[in-house]
Amino acid sequence: MRRVVQEIRVRPGQLDEYRRLHQRVPGPVLDRIRRSHIANYSIHLLGDRLIGYFEYHGDDLAADLAAMAADEPTLRWWALTDPLQEPLPEAGAGEHWATARQIFSLEEQEQEQQ
Amino acid sequence: MRRVVQEIRVRPGQLDEYRRLHQRVPGPVLDRIRRSHIANYSIHLLGDRLIGYFEYHGDDLAADLAAMAADEPTLRWWALTDPLQEPLPEAGAGEHWATARQIFSLEEQEQEQQ
Repeated sequence: MRRVVQEIRVRPGQLDEYRRLHQRVPGPVLDRIRRSHIANYSIHLLGDRLIGYFEYHGDDLAADLAAMAADEPTLRWWALTDPLQEPLPEAGAGEHWATARQIFSLEEQEQEQQ
Repeated sequence: MRRVVQEIRVRPGQLDEYRRLHQRVPGPVLDRIRRSHIANYSIHLLGDRLIGYFEYHGDDLAADLAAMAADEPTLRWWALTDPLQEPLPEAGAGEHWATARQIFSLEEQEQEQQ
């Protein structure tokens, strides 16, 4: 299992709409996330930054994300949410959300020290 | 279970030392985190920001954090790590790490939509 943390900025004045949309994400969008082997996904707000955390249980994250990006309900959902967001300077070329690097895990350290 | 996301800045030039320290966190510090009903704790780096994620399984987070702050091995650990960090503007009065607010959870939405 791989822990993934991502960040993006919410555009000024768009937070209320972003929160409203996320009070009820379409079921097919949730299903597509799940079928891409993603679990325990949550999004948090700090200042104007959205912080996403999820756990990836597959063996080809790029392919699983591509499957989401080819899914009609997901594309309709992103057409609503993308305009509310603005990539951070840390985002790589072609990245929307910028991806962080894990530098510590409680569970991994406990296993190493056993 | 409550998901907690926190952020803090790593001071310029201190990242290598922060990473080195976190390659082997003292066992008593890990134990004290665990006894404070915290699980699945990981720290990630994006730009100069450290992003922490953990899951809290107790019923009094303030008391459980206070127990950590009264623990000798934890205080010795923080004496090493605190000088490497700088609170973000979003940190509240008396906060070291700034705490984000959850605005979406895959699992909670799936339950609500069942």
